[in-house]
Amino acid sequence: MSRKIFLDESDIPSHWYNIVADMPNKPQPPLNPKTGQPAGPDDLSPIFPMGLIQQEVSADRYIEIPDQVRDIYKIWRPSPMYRATGLEKLLDTPAKIYYKYEGVSPSGSHKPNTAVAQVYYNKQEGVKNITTETGAGQWGTALAFACSQFDINCEVYMVRISYDQKPYRKVMMNTFGAEVYPSPSDRTQAGRNILADDPETSGSLGIAISEAIERAVQDDHTKYSLGSVLNHVLLHQTVIGQESIKQLEYAGDYPDVIVAPLGGGSNFAGISFPFLKNNLSDGKKTRFVAVEPASCPKLTQGEFLYDFGDSAGYTPLLPMYTLGHNFKPAAIHAGGLRYHGASVLCSQLLKDELIEAVAIQQLECFEAGVTFAKTEGIIAAPEATHGIAQVIREAEQAKKEGVSKTILLNLCGHGFVDMQAYEDYFAGKLSDHSFSENELKNGLKEILEMQPEA
Amino acid sequence: MSRKIFLDESDIPSHWYNIVADMPNKPQPPLNPKTGQPAGPDDLSPIFPMGLIQQEVSADRYIEIPDQVRDIYKIWRPSPMYRATGLEKLLDTPAKIYYKYEGVSPSGSHKPNTAVAQVYYNKQEGVKNITTETGAGQWGTALAFACSQFDINCEVYMVRISYDQKPYRKVMMNTFGAEVYPSPSDRTQAGRNILADDPETSGSLGIAISEAIERAVQDDHTKYSLGSVLNHVLLHQTVIGQESIKQLEYAGDYPDVIVAPLGGGSNFAGISFPFLKNNLSDGKKTRFVAVEPASCPKLTQGEFLYDFGDSAGYTPLLPMYTLGHNFKPAAIHAGGLRYHGASVLCSQLLKDELIEAVAIQQLECFEAGVTFAKTEGIIAAPEATHGIAQVIREAEQAKKEGVSKTILLNLCGHGFVDMQAYEDYFAGKLSDHSFSENELKNGLKEILEMQPEA
Repeated sequence: MSRKIFLDESDIPSHWYNIVADMPNKPQPPLNPKTGQPAGPDDLSPIFPMGLIQQEVSADRYIEIPDQVRDIYKIWRPSPMYRATGLEKLLDTPAKIYYKYEGVSPSGSHKPNTAVAQVYYNKQEGVKNITTETGAGQWGTALAFACSQFDINCEVYMVRISYDQKPYRKVMMNTFGAEVYPSPSDRTQAGRNILADDPETSGSLGIAISEAIERAVQDDHTKYSLGSVLNHVLLHQTVIGQESIKQLEYAGDYPDVIVAPLGGGSNFAGISFPFLKNNLSDGKKTRFVAVEPASCPKLTQGEFLYDFGDSAGYTPLLPMYTLGHNFKPAAIHAGGLRYHGASVLCSQLLKDELIEAVAIQQLECFEAGVTFAKTEGIIAAPEATHGIAQVIREAEQAKKEGVSKTILLNLCGHGFVDMQAYEDYFAGKLSDHSFSENELKNGLKEILEMQPEA
Repeated sequence: MSRKIFLDESDIPSHWYNIVADMPNKPQPPLNPKTGQPAGPDDLSPIFPMGLIQQEVSADRYIEIPDQVRDIYKIWRPSPMYRATGLEKLLDTPAKIYYKYEGVSPSGSHKPNTAVAQVYYNKQEGVKNITTETGAGQWGTALAFACSQFDINCEVYMVRISYDQKPYRKVMMNTFGAEVYPSPSDRTQAGRNILADDPETSGSLGIAISEAIERAVQDDHTKYSLGSVLNHVLLHQTVIGQESIKQLEYAGDYPDVIVAPLGGGSNFAGISFPFLKNNLSDGKKTRFVAVEPASCPKLTQGEFLYDFGDSAGYTPLLPMYTLGHNFKPAAIHAGGLRYHGASVLCSQLLKDELIEAVAIQQLECFEAGVTFAKTEGIIAAPEATHGIAQVIREAEQAKKEGVSKTILLNLCGHGFVDMQAYEDYFAGKLSDHSFSENELKNGLKEILEMQPEA
């Protein structure tokens, strides 16, 4: 049996798959927070190019991938799929475990799948400069790479504490040619205001978003780019699931359960949606398990409400599972999973019980990550270890029940630039964290008050 | 045209290729420094298992790879080969550029090819504990991974300055289960002596080797392991070249020139020797270019002499191109290329003009690395950028001459845990360095005096 399932470049999908076409309940519209009316393309055009706005609101089932985007995908796509023979052996499980590995991309995660597409549509419309925010640095690195491919300037606002603590990520962005500024910076009014109040602030993703959006709004040749949450971002990630279907076909297999960590939702959606289509239209019965950190439990303990996508309240109101846009997650290392809400599409699917969610504490995740490194030879990103932990639970359950099942994991990235997290784990510096029901209820009070009237 | 050339797991070579069988001039024997007589297996048995010593002195053309080793190779082998379409386009060259990418291994370089083999033979002979030294950390990580596969304890002495400056590498070793000690340590007499003299010493590879060997000699169940230079290490790396021959066959191509950086010689040998066999026995005319840093120019400015393999003078005397075992290379970032000598096999081949050598300054190498990242999407290790720089020279020469040629590079590892080097490059902190003839001559005086009589 072969551990690796590779595809040819001709197997890179020709279209992105848009799950909106097949959802039994379509997502509710985003709302303009000032008017309470559905937000339209005009609400988004100051910051996004029209090509992406059209995808954001599209109900077409398939959207063709431009040739130039497919050509750049060829740098690392199709990504490999592996049978986790080492992990299976250690667990002595009757389950078959496969993982799709997105860590082979230039930035080391799934993020370039959408970064390349987004920069393409910006380039088409004459954009010269793209701004974004980055926390842990995965998204900024992906956008920096994509911009280098289209000779577009990339301007990244990196949360100051990450800028100081994760210097390697900053250098990776520089290597791909991006400008990286610690946020808050003195380059924007938003940044200057914050710095005037508190020159020593460590920053936040909310502030960094404000800075990046402010720069985009100011200048006709500058647009803004977001790495998760939005419909078009999830759309671009569906290359992952489409390739996976083909790879499992070659292996003569089909997943009983698909597992992926969920931060905003893009890597979960990327692997799940093409298989979920088969549930919706071909009667397949695959389970889809989104894994979130117990320290940021929007899916399992949040509420389905209209909320802002950013903490500053600049975005339209989005219907989603949320902990409130001012929610402060516990300080865990999986920076990509600390977002207060889940994408509109994933939220609607969870509400409709078409997908499942589970929250896992970080110590279990790091333990799973160490096991995975030793058995599979890949040191996973802290975000990805959440998926591994759930896979181990599923495989152990299969053993307990004495039934075989086929598990597919989206291993969304490597952890080579996150080794500080493993160091803290080994040093016993990490702990688990749960929020009380009251803490979560209080955080949502403000959000409950701003819901639109039914 | 496909950028990627993948092989099946069944294409992993069944044998290692031993170039000694085909060398027109066999390598001269290592000498016991005390007696001046050829060193035999008994000189090595306190520190290496007999399985490896037999390979070290073997003249058999092919040595079978044990099934268990091949099974572990399957975790990442066969490694991919890529056509460098992005780099070719940027250079606008008639040359075709291919690179074999060893960065997909668990430790991110070619080193596990020999680490797995070495740990296997130790396990066969009941060894419970393997010691080694590591400078930059690549070798220690590879050995840590290999030991985790065989459930053997791994004890790494890491040069203190690297231990302090490269914490990510240490954590990677811990993740694979290794114990890592900053060297000098208080665990050995050698370490304690040095610490007594200078408690603040930053350590050296020579001291770390002394500590690792001392631990191996003390204990019957403990052996020592070396990551380059020795014949058996080069032997194990020949899986790289054998796979490359097959991959280029699929592409319908054959290399006119093969380029690889040379530190001790193992990654250069790994890709070159199977092709060199075709020069020696099939009349092929491939050129083989070993690239060294100008700041450690043993191949281009050293002399072919008997010298110690380590700075402490514990090893047998080896016939090799050397700058003297006390040579202090300039402080450059490519830690893997700062070794004072070249392996016996590579040295003999260079002496016989069957391979070539070139020295390149580090600024040209980092510039090449940045170009490669932007065009090929891979951030290369500082060591590997030396190969890239030479590939660019070859491709530009081909353009100047208006001739096509096929270039094959061994891209021996990624740079994700070496981003500090890129940061220093961007910050203008790096400079080029050359040694004067006099400096090099003085360094060799002591070595010239200790040559055996002819």
